[in-house]
Amino acid sequence: MVLIALEMTGLAVFAASGALAGVRARLDVFGVVVLAVTTALGGGILRDVLLGIHPPSALRDWRFLAVPAAVALAVFAGHRVFARLRRPMLVADAIGLGLFTVSGTATALEHGVPVHTACLIGMTTGIGGGALRDVLLREIPLVLRREIYALAALAGALVVAVGARLELPVGAASAVSVIGAALVVVVRMLALWRHWNAPVRADHPGGFSGGSQNDREH
Amino acid sequence: MVLIALEMTGLAVFAASGALAGVRARLDVFGVVVLAVTTALGGGILRDVLLGIHPPSALRDWRFLAVPAAVALAVFAGHRVFARLRRPMLVADAIGLGLFTVSGTATALEHGVPVHTACLIGMTTGIGGGALRDVLLREIPLVLRREIYALAALAGALVVAVGARLELPVGAASAVSVIGAALVVVVRMLALWRHWNAPVRADHPGGFSGGSQNDREH
Amino acid sequence: MVLIALEMTGLAVFAASGALAGVRARLDVFGVVVLAVTTALGGGILRDVLLGIHPPSALRDWRFLAVPAAVALAVFAGHRVFARLRRPMLVADAIGLGLFTVSGTATALEHGVPVHTACLIGMTTGIGGGALRDVLLREIPLVLRREIYALAALAGALVVAVGARLELPVGAASAVSVIGAALVVVVRMLALWRHWNAPVRADHPGGFSGGSQNDREH
Repeated sequence: MVLIALEMTGLAVFAASGALAGVRARLDVFGVVVLAVTTALGGGILRDVLLGIHPPSALRDWRFLAVPAAVALAVFAGHRVFARLRRPMLVADAIGLGLFTVSGTATALEHGVPVHTACLIGMTTGIGGGALRDVLLREIPLVLRREIYALAALAGALVVAVGARLELPVGAASAVSVIGAALVVVVRMLALWRHWNAPVRADHPGGFSGGSQNDREH
Repeated sequence: MVLIALEMTGLAVFAASGALAGVRARLDVFGVVVLAVTTALGGGILRDVLLGIHPPSALRDWRFLAVPAAVALAVFAGHRVFARLRRPMLVADAIGLGLFTVSGTATALEHGVPVHTACLIGMTTGIGGGALRDVLLREIPLVLRREIYALAALAGALVVAVGARLELPVGAASAVSVIGAALVVVVRMLALWRHWNAPVRADHPGGFSGGSQNDREH
Repeated sequence: MVLIALEMTGLAVFAASGALAGVRARLDVFGVVVLAVTTALGGGILRDVLLGIHPPSALRDWRFLAVPAAVALAVFAGHRVFARLRRPMLVADAIGLGLFTVSGTATALEHGVPVHTACLIGMTTGIGGGALRDVLLREIPLVLRREIYALAALAGALVVAVGARLELPVGAASAVSVIGAALVVVVRMLALWRHWNAPVRADHPGGFSGGSQNDREH
């Protein structure tokens, strides 16, 4: 139950991040919907392919299609409210990262893979949809860029994995999931807000082909 | 039989679209062949991965490699005839979209997945190869851009799925496949020809990182 | 044993190529690690997904994560030594291509697929990680560009496949693996060094959206 609620919320916020990115890139309404659905479902499909779940659950349950499509249409309709700013997209992306990392880790553990494999698959679930969104829009994925991103996801995955090891009662396990997701969001938002940056080789000549161009709007 | 004929034709036209895009991007003859083969096989491999067919049929049957490679070499040799124009690539892409959407939907139905799952997997089969081609050439995929694309594929997938529900005799089922594919091509070509565009948020400031640059040549 | 040694060396050199490309693109230390790990594991994960191995072995064995992460940190720390030059990245990429093509072909043969399928899956294993690296950095993948690349991989895959057909004793089979990998590296390095280029349609008008921009630094 908690897992499904987390996943549905994750779908909605990742769909919003995809739709906002699509509006910013001047896609039409269909492109915005396709991009939002791809962003929302990408991580979960990747998880199911890695775990050997056929066909992926995101393609079996119609709600997995309906929720992101509805969110995309709402964003397209109301884009004036927030689309000029890059920030709402980044916030939605952070929440989706947290929710999908946690649900991906939990799903992998349910399928009996080792703990560290579950953490990696959870991270991939969280990172996958946003990476796909960025590649489709020809941007260097957020996960490769300035702020703490993969590390935030890893922290959340570890919380869930440790919780599973402790064999907590159901209620406590649900609480651990929520705490794991919240940890990802808090770390990621703090990194964005405080401009926590990891070291870059600033003395490197670099050049025009680098990713710097994408960072202007931060 | 009809399914194999549809697939082989789909392979040839998608290979042509990949080869034309490769020549336009000034790839050498090997790059053109690799891109053509990837474009032709990408959708079917994606379909088989989603359905859990291992190894993908496109990697088992040598004709799946020979047909696109031969088409790519022919396009490379005769590129002067049509390569300056973007149009032949778009026409080949539309035909491939129709054929692969239909064969992907039918293959998914044969594997016993629910009807709406089959439609989604069929769409993915149709869209996958072209999206891969565009990402590899650093273009925003056609499916995200101006004209009706995913919607055309969805229409064809629905025709096939409804046909399967009606439990028609074999001959009629084959006819339905052809009608589904033709519907995709007609809708897509009409959209290209009449410049049917879905609403875009034109008042949006956009900027330099958007997809507008790709649309110049339409 | 030989297969594991080949894979670990392949992981290290592909990680180095990914890390060097990441430093060049001015990613921070986390981005460099993520890109290096993705480059190193991408081909093997693709191979396991195509063969239906769940979860992919790269996500089960912790050394598959530790080796590329350590290499990435070392490259980041010592980037001044070589990062200004594109050449070290290309050399590491060539060695990784050889090692992964050979280990991918051998793994596929072990899973009982037909010989030509094993060659294709071996090529994909070799090409996959580098292609993913280039797409994430918004470069047109090496495999589509000027020098002999896929053809070098194909030669190595064929050597391994023919060796397997001959049913050699274990020692000789290991030697064949090493010869296959060495052949890929030699062909690829000769192509780079002697600027062996396949024909391009130089008379083609091309334009600004092509891949020429990436080739400046060769």
